[in-house]
Amino acid sequence: MRTSREYKESLKGMRPNVYKFGELIQDVTTHPATRRTIEGHGQIYDAALKEEYRDILTTTSSFTGERISRYLSIIGSAEDMIENVKMKRLMFNLTGTCTGGRCVGFNAINSIWAATYDMDQELQTDYHGRVKAWLTKAQSDDIALAGALTDPKGDRSKRPSEQKDPDMSLRMVERSKDGGIVVRGAKVMIAGVAAANEVFVLPGTGYKEEDRDYAVSFAIPRDIKGLTVVEARHPSDGRDFETGFDNPVDYGGISQGYLLFQDVHVPKERVFMAGEWKHSLKTVLNFIAPYRSAIGGCVAGQGDVIVGAAALMARANGLSEKVFREKLTQMTVNNETTFGMGIAASVMGKLHPSGVWIPDPKLANVNKVHVATLPYETKRLAQDIAGGIAETGCLPSSEDIHSPEYGELLQKYLKANSTGETRARIARLIEWLTIGEGVPGCMHGGGSPDGAKLMISGMAEIENNIRLARKVANINEEIPAPDAKK
Amino acid sequence: MRTSREYKESLKGMRPNVYKFGELIQDVTTHPATRRTIEGHGQIYDAALKEEYRDILTTTSSFTGERISRYLSIIGSAEDMIENVKMKRLMFNLTGTCTGGRCVGFNAINSIWAATYDMDQELQTDYHGRVKAWLTKAQSDDIALAGALTDPKGDRSKRPSEQKDPDMSLRMVERSKDGGIVVRGAKVMIAGVAAANEVFVLPGTGYKEEDRDYAVSFAIPRDIKGLTVVEARHPSDGRDFETGFDNPVDYGGISQGYLLFQDVHVPKERVFMAGEWKHSLKTVLNFIAPYRSAIGGCVAGQGDVIVGAAALMARANGLSEKVFREKLTQMTVNNETTFGMGIAASVMGKLHPSGVWIPDPKLANVNKVHVATLPYETKRLAQDIAGGIAETGCLPSSEDIHSPEYGELLQKYLKANSTGETRARIARLIEWLTIGEGVPGCMHGGGSPDGAKLMISGMAEIENNIRLARKVANINEEIPAPDAKK
Amino acid sequence: MRTSREYKESLKGMRPNVYKFGELIQDVTTHPATRRTIEGHGQIYDAALKEEYRDILTTTSSFTGERISRYLSIIGSAEDMIENVKMKRLMFNLTGTCTGGRCVGFNAINSIWAATYDMDQELQTDYHGRVKAWLTKAQSDDIALAGALTDPKGDRSKRPSEQKDPDMSLRMVERSKDGGIVVRGAKVMIAGVAAANEVFVLPGTGYKEEDRDYAVSFAIPRDIKGLTVVEARHPSDGRDFETGFDNPVDYGGISQGYLLFQDVHVPKERVFMAGEWKHSLKTVLNFIAPYRSAIGGCVAGQGDVIVGAAALMARANGLSEKVFREKLTQMTVNNETTFGMGIAASVMGKLHPSGVWIPDPKLANVNKVHVATLPYETKRLAQDIAGGIAETGCLPSSEDIHSPEYGELLQKYLKANSTGETRARIARLIEWLTIGEGVPGCMHGGGSPDGAKLMISGMAEIENNIRLARKVANINEEIPAPDAKK
Amino acid sequence: MRTSREYKESLKGMRPNVYKFGELIQDVTTHPATRRTIEGHGQIYDAALKEEYRDILTTTSSFTGERISRYLSIIGSAEDMIENVKMKRLMFNLTGTCTGGRCVGFNAINSIWAATYDMDQELQTDYHGRVKAWLTKAQSDDIALAGALTDPKGDRSKRPSEQKDPDMSLRMVERSKDGGIVVRGAKVMIAGVAAANEVFVLPGTGYKEEDRDYAVSFAIPRDIKGLTVVEARHPSDGRDFETGFDNPVDYGGISQGYLLFQDVHVPKERVFMAGEWKHSLKTVLNFIAPYRSAIGGCVAGQGDVIVGAAALMARANGLSEKVFREKLTQMTVNNETTFGMGIAASVMGKLHPSGVWIPDPKLANVNKVHVATLPYETKRLAQDIAGGIAETGCLPSSEDIHSPEYGELLQKYLKANSTGETRARIARLIEWLTIGEGVPGCMHGGGSPDGAKLMISGMAEIENNIRLARKVANINEEIPAPDAKK
Repeated sequence: MRTSREYKESLKGMRPNVYKFGELIQDVTTHPATRRTIEGHGQIYDAALKEEYRDILTTTSSFTGERISRYLSIIGSAEDMIENVKMKRLMFNLTGTCTGGRCVGFNAINSIWAATYDMDQELQTDYHGRVKAWLTKAQSDDIALAGALTDPKGDRSKRPSEQKDPDMSLRMVERSKDGGIVVRGAKVMIAGVAAANEVFVLPGTGYKEEDRDYAVSFAIPRDIKGLTVVEARHPSDGRDFETGFDNPVDYGGISQGYLLFQDVHVPKERVFMAGEWKHSLKTVLNFIAPYRSAIGGCVAGQGDVIVGAAALMARANGLSEKVFREKLTQMTVNNETTFGMGIAASVMGKLHPSGVWIPDPKLANVNKVHVATLPYETKRLAQDIAGGIAETGCLPSSEDIHSPEYGELLQKYLKANSTGETRARIARLIEWLTIGEGVPGCMHGGGSPDGAKLMISGMAEIENNIRLARKVANINEEIPAPDAKK
Repeated sequence: MRTSREYKESLKGMRPNVYKFGELIQDVTTHPATRRTIEGHGQIYDAALKEEYRDILTTTSSFTGERISRYLSIIGSAEDMIENVKMKRLMFNLTGTCTGGRCVGFNAINSIWAATYDMDQELQTDYHGRVKAWLTKAQSDDIALAGALTDPKGDRSKRPSEQKDPDMSLRMVERSKDGGIVVRGAKVMIAGVAAANEVFVLPGTGYKEEDRDYAVSFAIPRDIKGLTVVEARHPSDGRDFETGFDNPVDYGGISQGYLLFQDVHVPKERVFMAGEWKHSLKTVLNFIAPYRSAIGGCVAGQGDVIVGAAALMARANGLSEKVFREKLTQMTVNNETTFGMGIAASVMGKLHPSGVWIPDPKLANVNKVHVATLPYETKRLAQDIAGGIAETGCLPSSEDIHSPEYGELLQKYLKANSTGETRARIARLIEWLTIGEGVPGCMHGGGSPDGAKLMISGMAEIENNIRLARKVANINEEIPAPDAKK
Repeated sequence: MRTSREYKESLKGMRPNVYKFGELIQDVTTHPATRRTIEGHGQIYDAALKEEYRDILTTTSSFTGERISRYLSIIGSAEDMIENVKMKRLMFNLTGTCTGGRCVGFNAINSIWAATYDMDQELQTDYHGRVKAWLTKAQSDDIALAGALTDPKGDRSKRPSEQKDPDMSLRMVERSKDGGIVVRGAKVMIAGVAAANEVFVLPGTGYKEEDRDYAVSFAIPRDIKGLTVVEARHPSDGRDFETGFDNPVDYGGISQGYLLFQDVHVPKERVFMAGEWKHSLKTVLNFIAPYRSAIGGCVAGQGDVIVGAAALMARANGLSEKVFREKLTQMTVNNETTFGMGIAASVMGKLHPSGVWIPDPKLANVNKVHVATLPYETKRLAQDIAGGIAETGCLPSSEDIHSPEYGELLQKYLKANSTGETRARIARLIEWLTIGEGVPGCMHGGGSPDGAKLMISGMAEIENNIRLARKVANINEEIPAPDAKK
Repeated sequence: MRTSREYKESLKGMRPNVYKFGELIQDVTTHPATRRTIEGHGQIYDAALKEEYRDILTTTSSFTGERISRYLSIIGSAEDMIENVKMKRLMFNLTGTCTGGRCVGFNAINSIWAATYDMDQELQTDYHGRVKAWLTKAQSDDIALAGALTDPKGDRSKRPSEQKDPDMSLRMVERSKDGGIVVRGAKVMIAGVAAANEVFVLPGTGYKEEDRDYAVSFAIPRDIKGLTVVEARHPSDGRDFETGFDNPVDYGGISQGYLLFQDVHVPKERVFMAGEWKHSLKTVLNFIAPYRSAIGGCVAGQGDVIVGAAALMARANGLSEKVFREKLTQMTVNNETTFGMGIAASVMGKLHPSGVWIPDPKLANVNKVHVATLPYETKRLAQDIAGGIAETGCLPSSEDIHSPEYGELLQKYLKANSTGETRARIARLIEWLTIGEGVPGCMHGGGSPDGAKLMISGMAEIENNIRLARKVANINEEIPAPDAKK
């Protein structure tokens, strides 16, 4: 298993193909636009080597028996899944934000592990073995693996093959002679790509026969020929290029990239789906269940930091955090709810014949609904506790606070129960967590809450509940369901 | 294991000591004030004998290896605890409301199993063996066992021994020569007593040395000499004495009683704590953790029925339940949240040396907060969906609907997508569930949400969270915690 | 203006045609099923004569210049409308619940005042003068006037004329030779009928040409020939027939009746709409705006009592209400919000050419949404503060508390910072307010919140808001609105 | 009245004393850090000259009878106050955010108008005339007037005179011979200073005799000698210095400054309070009532733009906004609630003897509670509707979208039901409104919600409500209030 230094070295060795602000980033590990997210991912590597985090961050390979990063393991049981939820919480605890450049890939390999098993069973393909071979090496190399699902989609009322522009979802444009494929299109808003060695691509959903070319899954080096990555902006990301503490977090940061595939050739041994459109939905569902379970840990982990930052701000303002007990307790309730629901979904899951443990989809989607609402309340409460200084727009820049001309005056007036500078630093952290660069996309990351609600609605046992109600009150008359139109 | 008929026979054989409306109830199984709750408990006995519910409602005795009711078992693992949560949900599914005359006792025996183990270890008492002996027989007799915790308390700012009236919490007034004790006082708002064969008594909390006589635990037959039970009123309980469908549920009902102990003698073999005041807090905490976990199942189980009743009402009104998809989904989210948090608390628990599995107290208390809020929203949504007829006060009595004079007219005007009578029956069910006799006391049952919040606050890791926040933003200055007074 | 004694005398003089529980009520002023609501309405009469309430409860007739009950006045200005909102709050303050037997009629006459003006203008009818003549006498007689809108409706997907049973909405079956009409059908869930001298009937909405016979409005004596009233049940209304304090309110009570019209002949001078189907929608809209504004006062007025009851319970439990400051403040916020929104809707209204002030419909409907949610939170908080004793099902009956056998024991154990009986009385009041007979139907009374949301949505200025957004960000591209189907 | 050009000219003519990022801004009207907020304020000047906005933005001077900006008027009636609420909504509609450089000053002059009247009456001072003289000229010059209240405060548990550093609240350090005063200290987080010609200073609260030197009020030119202004950072304010559309709003922007007073001399005719510490609390209360009323208009006005942006984004994504009707309706409910409560507080106010209309403080503070919560929900719903692209961190920079190398590819994949660029622009607007530079500080601006709750609690009529509850249920026993300590 790699150290963070080895991990960073591996990134340095890659072909530069990541851009931001119109600039090609030569070394992602040192460039201001990308180095923080890489430091965040680096913390995973270092933590995995520490005794205290070992059980959470590492496990034993089901292939080799070697100790490997949990991020590259097959989730084989409820216990594994619980550790996954805890791992997410831990990483948000340590970096303050998302380290999606390992976690989404982790979900993707588990999803494809089941999917390729099913495909091979049904269609006599040989994908499962390819995944195993590729993954065995990935485990041994301890790679950082991003995962890519979201297609641009274009007109949301049409399927991929119906679009005017056929490239609006990623597609296979050619099967090459060596058994590989050539793909064109894009995957967008992909977390952690700059910090990743490889990218694992999954297909979308809603495909029919005509969309077969869109049913593709594969793993590629992040710097593969033909792939261009453009990193998206974050709130206040201009501060990444400043000195001072206005981006208050040096060892953590989130990134989302647009992956532009200009006829990328993927060799056979890295192709895990190529046209099996009937399997794309299930692949995505198998992705969603663990993703929407574990994200409860993410949100709880950031919530822990938010609780701490708010309490610290209260102290720096000269107020006991006990004054805010009701609010801090509500924040804790929110954290434990998304964490707990993640645990519950994990436990109530089922083992897929391939050996992957799939969490309960209903509870996982219920958790997604909470993940899309509770953190907003937690952040609001943090701003409530922290006072105007940390809400928005009420604190001078680090540069001003250190101005030779009037910096001392600012520090004089910023002091309370701590020095002015410390108070400013805490305020910046709260800004970063609640309305700044540290805010992860928990609303739509891993799919929208409306999508989750549709799934819950589909799984809700209304007919069964009606039966219960009838029985409890001894109601026998048959009542035909009226048409849905009101 | 007993059938519901045997269960009811056992109740018939007991000394009448249950009163309501000033009347001594001669046969609780047939008297209108009590028969419904007994029918509800009877359903447990019958369901336990059915194959489909066997795994949920029964288990193997850790003492005898015999198949026994889960309600009389020691919870020995996370799996047992999960089944407990499911069992609660099932029983609300089947009866529409609470069957507290078995479930509280179940919690109590598990709590005392741990407590007596600890006492024996620390104080060389012999309580644990007494519990085992008593419980072995209870399992074999398959008794219905209520549990009693709540003391009247009197002035809430004073401890029991400080009260003007020393009886405001149940206390030992005498140690009898046979090693037993004599107790005086009351336990109030005790669920399911009328439906129980025995009552298991636990002490309260907040005791000091002077309060030692209040630290008592024991099990007694419900009809023991010196014990008088007065059943409390429920909303609309006058309807229990009517014919017609205005109390729409015949095979379910909740009860809470006031237990008046007038110097009751408890023999030695039924005494499990007698003065060991230092152990009372832990006993109650061990009760709270599984109780506040499992109550998530209760609330979900009633929620299932509420979802069904609301959807059925929509249909009877002539509207598709699809019109209300958003609301029904939110109700489902609420149900699955309390259920899921109960599962999570169960899973994250720990094994006590005595062999009892104790759920995670933080998650259990977080669930209590949800249990005290989410069902209110679920009920509001049910009334929203159901329309004015089921909200409150908008439906004539069953008697009027059947009036020879104008009943036909009422039925004519009540019909929609069902007959008028069926529509009225569904409306009564919703009333019963949301503002009637079926509403369980989920706010304060098992302790108040404010108490739960205090416990969450006590367990919240504010200092640890502050440490995380400091580390993430590299904030080093020591900030002293100001005094709590604002 | 009448005293409450005169008011009650007037009711005694009427033909008995009100039923409940299958029984014809001979004297509504003394019968247990109806006397409380009549006492509540009686309080209006008495309060109107007191100096302190004079400005709220009375005004000057725009017809005669005489001082009259505000309940029989034309709302001629924003100030009048504000007093209306205050009046509703006052009456809930004094009776704890709804006095709908005057307030709905008040809304109805204002609605028809505008509608008849418009009809006369457009159709050269002479309705407006009829209303004036009838109302002048009503003012002079100071009658209690109920208002009736809700039709049974039957299958909600069909218009009245499309129903299998043509009587599912109230309709004109004949025009009599004297210019009057004969009506058949029902109005259901009508508030305060038992307490009313007359009933003012308005049509429903959604009518087309074929539904013209359903477009009827008129005023009738409550005891008119052919009309039968069946009073609906309320939660715990069995207690109306008991002694003791289990129905804790003697001078207040709500009622809803089913009005069965068996070919009732309405004379010409009392007919205000008869077939003018195009005017029915506007009539109802003119009803809705003031109704949904003023109901904010109702809900606030009951909320005031709930706040008081919760604080009093806290004291009786021995806890300072300061412990619950956050909760009591939230309850106050809820009360002031529905009150304030009622005021705002009142102020932002417009004068109809007939001289009626019509509140702002958007704000009025927004208030309806709050009225259908905030009181639920207020009640939940009251139960939270009050403790288990007042939540549900945890207090013995008044009869038991006074039992010669064990009543003293119950009182002993019920005492805390007050006597046991007083504590029980307060608990019963909270039960009455939150889950008992005092709960008004604020969800669907005056129409459902879903209906209100539809109206808000219809009035929301999305296109204008889009224009603002475009302008702010200088976005010029035309974006066609996609079809609504997702 | 001035045009925006004249307004900007007036700013150009002032002494440069505004800093940001360590740099002295030579011309605030053109410097990237300040020009947007000045353009926003400029829109007020231009709109005031347009017929359609005339009644909202202008009124008649009570001094001269001339038409003046409403921002410099005395609020003399409920109608004036309602126009104030509408004016705030309008300005947020037009600029997308806060134009605090006129509105806070407006509140301040009304507050001091009442305060100086009272002081003159009680203490025979001559402040009122000074205010009149100064304000007459301000009206005639049509100045932009910021208002400054917030002191740094330091240790929040100590009063100003008790602080180690006596400068932690602004104070008078000298009375100069000419009758003026010399002040030292700071006012922090002051809105719109860069856009203002003058600044109106009010004292803080909580003063005793020893704090008399802190009770100061005065008006000064923004560029007065001895005053240094440091503008605070906003989220993403680095984009102010970029080209492209990543700050999507050119004609609007918010600013908050730190005002550092280094012994500033204020001449006599501009001093309106100097030591009258007993009047400071009332001055602030008179500020709070209109401020917390009118802010409901601000929040609604931004909410209008948010609704529009979300609906536009839905369309650009290819989805009908009808899909999101429930959410858009909820957003509208939120907007109308803060607006409506502002109206209600305005209407229920009282006339101060000085001729200033003071809104109802209870309703105003209730509105503050809504203002601190509802916009958070509105923003969350906007992100929910808009999809991942607009949530956070998921859209490449304007620079990248226009990259000669891959810009076309990005635009290709960003297109849906609009061009890629337009879709990106809308997404940026939503980011700006919900997690960017346009977010105003509605949580703590004008005081914290906790402060508002304290005031509500103080004004809540608990004793009166208890009296109502007692009367309704006929409860007579006196129950002493227990001590507050639980």
